[in-house]
Amino acid sequence: MNLSDSLENLIEEFSKLPSIGRKTAQRLAIHIIKQPRESVARFSETLLNVKDRIKFCRICCNITEQDICRICNSKKRDTSKICVVEEPQDVIAIERTNEYNGLYHVLHGKISPLEGVGPDDIRVKELIERLARIEVNNVSEVIFALNANVEGETTILYLTKLLKPLGINTTRIARGIPIGADLELTDEITLAKAIEGRVNV
Amino acid sequence: MNLSDSLENLIEEFSKLPSIGRKTAQRLAIHIIKQPRESVARFSETLLNVKDRIKFCRICCNITEQDICRICNSKKRDTSKICVVEEPQDVIAIERTNEYNGLYHVLHGKISPLEGVGPDDIRVKELIERLARIEVNNVSEVIFALNANVEGETTILYLTKLLKPLGINTTRIARGIPIGADLELTDEITLAKAIEGRVNV
Repeated sequence: MNLSDSLENLIEEFSKLPSIGRKTAQRLAIHIIKQPRESVARFSETLLNVKDRIKFCRICCNITEQDICRICNSKKRDTSKICVVEEPQDVIAIERTNEYNGLYHVLHGKISPLEGVGPDDIRVKELIERLARIEVNNVSEVIFALNANVEGETTILYLTKLLKPLGINTTRIARGIPIGADLELTDEITLAKAIEGRVNV
Repeated sequence: MNLSDSLENLIEEFSKLPSIGRKTAQRLAIHIIKQPRESVARFSETLLNVKDRIKFCRICCNITEQDICRICNSKKRDTSKICVVEEPQDVIAIERTNEYNGLYHVLHGKISPLEGVGPDDIRVKELIERLARIEVNNVSEVIFALNANVEGETTILYLTKLLKPLGINTTRIARGIPIGADLELTDEITLAKAIEGRVNV
C-alpha cells in the first residue's frame, strides 16, 4: 500500500540511512509530514549545508569546515602522539574523556577483506605520508584506538608492520572489563584479554 | 567537543526525530557527510517535496497528495465501515493484511490527559461531522483499531459515548495472544483479555 509517491520517496531516503529499517523510516517520514514547513525547510537546508561546508582535514582526515581542523591547528596539543581511529565519531568519544591531548588520524574505515575493503580504501596512505614528513618527525607514539574486532585487529597488524620500520612506537588502547560490568557476565575473550593485560596495583 | 557547526546543526536536526538519540544522530550525520553530493541533494529535496505535496484527506484525514485520498476515492471500498486508527502508518499496516475493505478515519493521535492531549487536539471533530453528514448515513459500523494501552482505551471510551447517540454500532479489534507467541511468556493482562474474548471453534 502506497499512500503517496512523495512520501514513499522520503521513506526510501530514510531507509538508506544506517540502522534505519523500513518501519522506522515510515515513522520518521510521517513525523516529517506533521512538522511545520519552516522546520522541514531548516532540516532540508542543514543537510545540504553540511555537505557543502564539511571537508576533511588536510593533516588528520578528520571532518572540519576549514582546511585544517581545530585539533591539528591547536597550539595546546601534544604533537608527539597520534591516535589512530576509524571514524570521526571516535574522535568525539575520545575527546569527551578529557584524557588525551595528542593528535588524531581518522582512517574512515578499517581493513576488511571480507567486505572488500583494503588499505587503499581507507586513509592509510595519508598516515604514512604524514609520519614520513620532516616536520612531524617528533612523533614518538602512534596509539591505535580501533574497535576490538577482527577488522580492527587486521588493521592494527597491517599498520604496525608499516610503522615499525619508521622507528615509531605503536600502542593500543587496553581491552578489558568495562567499568560497571559484571565479571560473570563478561564474555571469555574479553576476560582473557583482561587477565592478559593485567597491571600492578 | 564540536567538530564543526554545520555538522552540529545536522546532528541536532536528526536528534529531533522520534526514536533517534544523540549517538544515532551523530552516526547518521557522519553518514551524510560521506555520501555523494547528488544523494544528499536528493534527500534534501525529498524532504521539502513531501511537506509541499502531502495534504490530509478532506474526508478521512489520512495523508494524500490529492484533496481526497485513494481509499476514500475508491469505488471498490465498503462504505458502511469506518476503521478508526491513530496514525497513517496504521492504515498501511491494516491495508497490508488484505483483510479489510472499508474506509478509515485517522485521528492523528490519541486522547492522553497525562500528556495534555484532549479530544480537540486530534481529529475527533472531523469524525463526528463525517458521521453526521447525510451522504454517509449508511455507515453501520465504526471499528476501533487503536493501540492497546491506557490512552487507546480512553479514546475508545470517549468516542463510543459520542457515537452511541448516532445509532452507530462500534466494535474494537480483538486483543489476545499474538500468532506465534508463547502462552507462558504472554503477560497476564493480554492473557486475561484473550480468555475474556474467547470465540467458538
